[in-house]
Amino acid sequence: MICDENVDVVVIGSGLAGLAAAIEAAAAGAEVMVLEKMKITGGNTRISDGGLAAPGNYLQQKDGIDDSPELFAADMLKAGLGLNHPDLVWIVAERAAETIEWTRIELGVRYLDQLDRFGGHSAARSLTTRSHSGVDIIKAQVARLAELGIRVRTCCRFTGFVTDGDGEIRGVRIREGYRFPEDDSGTPKTIGARQAVVLATGGFANDQAFRAAQHPGLNATVQTTNHRGATAEGLIAALGFKACPVHLSWIQLGPWGCADEKGYGKGGRFASYAVFPAGILVDPATGRRIVNEWSDRRERSDAMLRAGHPCVGIIDAVGAQKDAASLKDCLKIGKVQAFQALDALAAAYGLPAAILAETVADYNRAVAAGRSDAFGKDLGQGACTVAKPPFYAIRLYPKVHYTPGGVRIDQRARVIDLNANPIPRLFAAGEVTGGVHGASRLGSCALTECLVFGRIAGQEAARLTPVSGA
Amino acid sequence: MICDENVDVVVIGSGLAGLAAAIEAAAAGAEVMVLEKMKITGGNTRISDGGLAAPGNYLQQKDGIDDSPELFAADMLKAGLGLNHPDLVWIVAERAAETIEWTRIELGVRYLDQLDRFGGHSAARSLTTRSHSGVDIIKAQVARLAELGIRVRTCCRFTGFVTDGDGEIRGVRIREGYRFPEDDSGTPKTIGARQAVVLATGGFANDQAFRAAQHPGLNATVQTTNHRGATAEGLIAALGFKACPVHLSWIQLGPWGCADEKGYGKGGRFASYAVFPAGILVDPATGRRIVNEWSDRRERSDAMLRAGHPCVGIIDAVGAQKDAASLKDCLKIGKVQAFQALDALAAAYGLPAAILAETVADYNRAVAAGRSDAFGKDLGQGACTVAKPPFYAIRLYPKVHYTPGGVRIDQRARVIDLNANPIPRLFAAGEVTGGVHGASRLGSCALTECLVFGRIAGQEAARLTPVSGA
Repeated sequence: MICDENVDVVVIGSGLAGLAAAIEAAAAGAEVMVLEKMKITGGNTRISDGGLAAPGNYLQQKDGIDDSPELFAADMLKAGLGLNHPDLVWIVAERAAETIEWTRIELGVRYLDQLDRFGGHSAARSLTTRSHSGVDIIKAQVARLAELGIRVRTCCRFTGFVTDGDGEIRGVRIREGYRFPEDDSGTPKTIGARQAVVLATGGFANDQAFRAAQHPGLNATVQTTNHRGATAEGLIAALGFKACPVHLSWIQLGPWGCADEKGYGKGGRFASYAVFPAGILVDPATGRRIVNEWSDRRERSDAMLRAGHPCVGIIDAVGAQKDAASLKDCLKIGKVQAFQALDALAAAYGLPAAILAETVADYNRAVAAGRSDAFGKDLGQGACTVAKPPFYAIRLYPKVHYTPGGVRIDQRARVIDLNANPIPRLFAAGEVTGGVHGASRLGSCALTECLVFGRIAGQEAARLTPVSGA
Repeated sequence: MICDENVDVVVIGSGLAGLAAAIEAAAAGAEVMVLEKMKITGGNTRISDGGLAAPGNYLQQKDGIDDSPELFAADMLKAGLGLNHPDLVWIVAERAAETIEWTRIELGVRYLDQLDRFGGHSAARSLTTRSHSGVDIIKAQVARLAELGIRVRTCCRFTGFVTDGDGEIRGVRIREGYRFPEDDSGTPKTIGARQAVVLATGGFANDQAFRAAQHPGLNATVQTTNHRGATAEGLIAALGFKACPVHLSWIQLGPWGCADEKGYGKGGRFASYAVFPAGILVDPATGRRIVNEWSDRRERSDAMLRAGHPCVGIIDAVGAQKDAASLKDCLKIGKVQAFQALDALAAAYGLPAAILAETVADYNRAVAAGRSDAFGKDLGQGACTVAKPPFYAIRLYPKVHYTPGGVRIDQRARVIDLNANPIPRLFAAGEVTGGVHGASRLGSCALTECLVFGRIAGQEAARLTPVSGA
């Protein structure tokens, strides 16, 4: 079939993974086209917090922090409940540090001069970009691509593959001038790919139909922290092309979602940094706590989903100081309310006041005794009673945050089909793939994964012999 | 395309679901062909225990046991961690009792005159066939089909769909005279389906490549209870035809796997019917219990996988009478050993004797007190101490037992594609489907599901207008 345009490598998606693939393929001499369905580049990376886990990175070396790819891989496998594909975990772990150097040297990305140790990581190994956002890297990648003569084509939606007589991939179908989310907008067009197609279309946290097929509870009533374009059509196209699905039903929720605010928001941060460690989470229907508020993301989210409605995070004047800046922000925008007495708080949020008083008294007794409570929350040193007014309340409900499942790939970023064979000329990287994180992703591993496998995909794509006559 | 043979409805698979579909379609007047890749009919049903959960069944009515579809559905959703598709759960729950009547009246199946309450069920609601095996129902189904003029065609392997110019299903490709597991054996042939194809190809517990893609830990070192033919090719064909995958990575392990016996075996049955309800499970490394032995399968299996080695099931002379027949079998083949004293048992299985004595004493005290123990095991009415010699021991370790994931279906057993639309003329029932059980299937729900959705698939298939000229 004769396509409207032809290049060597077509990259679908302009988040971190897609741009990394494009840079590597172009640097290797391939003629590259990057297609992005939204009006702007960057996907979810743009709204991420810019954290990258990398054992052995330059700051760890400077600070003399003991870490290794083995330790990092073990952490990922533990969080992933051992469902992870160990060969993929290993690639991320082994190449993370050199990838950070690549962002510094090749892209000129600059990081904060401090390392974070996030939950589930056994070492302080996470770098954060200067602006505290992944957009720093996106901007650097877009600039590097411009130097290579490539401009990301926005408003171009991928709609399927172009195949030859044997059913092998020869390019992609797109809608140019597409206006998200109008399916029929834009003009149909075909782009030939002489060497390969790289799928970097991201996750499906914002695709209500697809995610509800995997987890019916995650229907339209459940919000997400993701950007609007985090939908499944790229993934669906690959699955329809016999790519093997992996871990699709493991969908990660953030328990810190503020029910009265869109996205991650200020409330999410206040919940994360203050309410969960220093306060309690109460089901308004019963007036009782429902979970260890400092358990892992999955347990807290599941408890709220079982309740089936937003729960009320409650914290006192002392505990709220754990994140005074966010408290101030949240009070200003009305996402957190202050009360001089628990009775007034109960009335405002529809909680049974007498039972709430009991719940708080029980909790405070457990904190005073310095023991673990019935939910297994460690109320020893550092725990905080809910005793000193004003009392602060915030409505919390989990938000869909990340989809660790996707298409199966191998160590070379080749997409693997249902019969365990590579699909010729199809690569994938980033959140559209599955297997790296298993049941649950640790914080700050997504950007690292996107860069590592994005680069591999671009390198591998550029290495293929062009199809003649395409 | 002109097929070698043509019928109205082609059913792939001759387990409980496939045969139920065939009977219903034939009873409705359709010309039906049933294809089975193995030499014998019955699939996994043949080696199942013959248990069928059904709230409101005739024995419950006779015994005045309070139960309801709502209660059953709630149990299934709880075990499934809420991942189940509630609309499918409801169909199984609502139709279970009438389906039991169908097996009695239409097929002449006879059940034991006693109800079981299996782990995770909130009532004694499970019937068991007379021979304690699903083969009773298979035989009755095969006989009923013979009356309808249909003989199951064994040694016929499904290899893909026949489609028309629009890509719609018009039949199936098979290999006739196939000899499992030789892929290229048999003669290629096409069977046209004027009305529909019903996929009832079962689960993939014995497909090491496919299950390892979903859960890399479940490689060849982990045993399975399933028959050799429990492989994924039917599922793969449907996924390759854009059927939506659901819950593929939730693979169920049976906690009652006897470490010293292949397959489900006699030991598995003894553990299931006697050791878990009436005995204890002890980690030989510690001499202590590790889990509520009457919790759901997942919890018990996970506990043993965490231990990382076979654990010892221990039961006394009284408890063992819960399944005296299996005990006799197991003693004969040496899978269960008898001891006059716990010390001797400890020595034989390498357990620390003093701690085992403590463990048993603690357990017996809790039973005597009729309260729940630290693991939450209900030790009220009917619980059994471990006190009266001889004491019996069996080594247990989880085996891959069931694959709750599969293709998405709707309440009419239509296969649903990646974009949430039904695939025309394709139905599925039984273990090849996903969504009914979510994260974990409760015991004795599989046969019920197979019959309920098998019958629906057959009824719906027979209702379609035949394609002219096919």
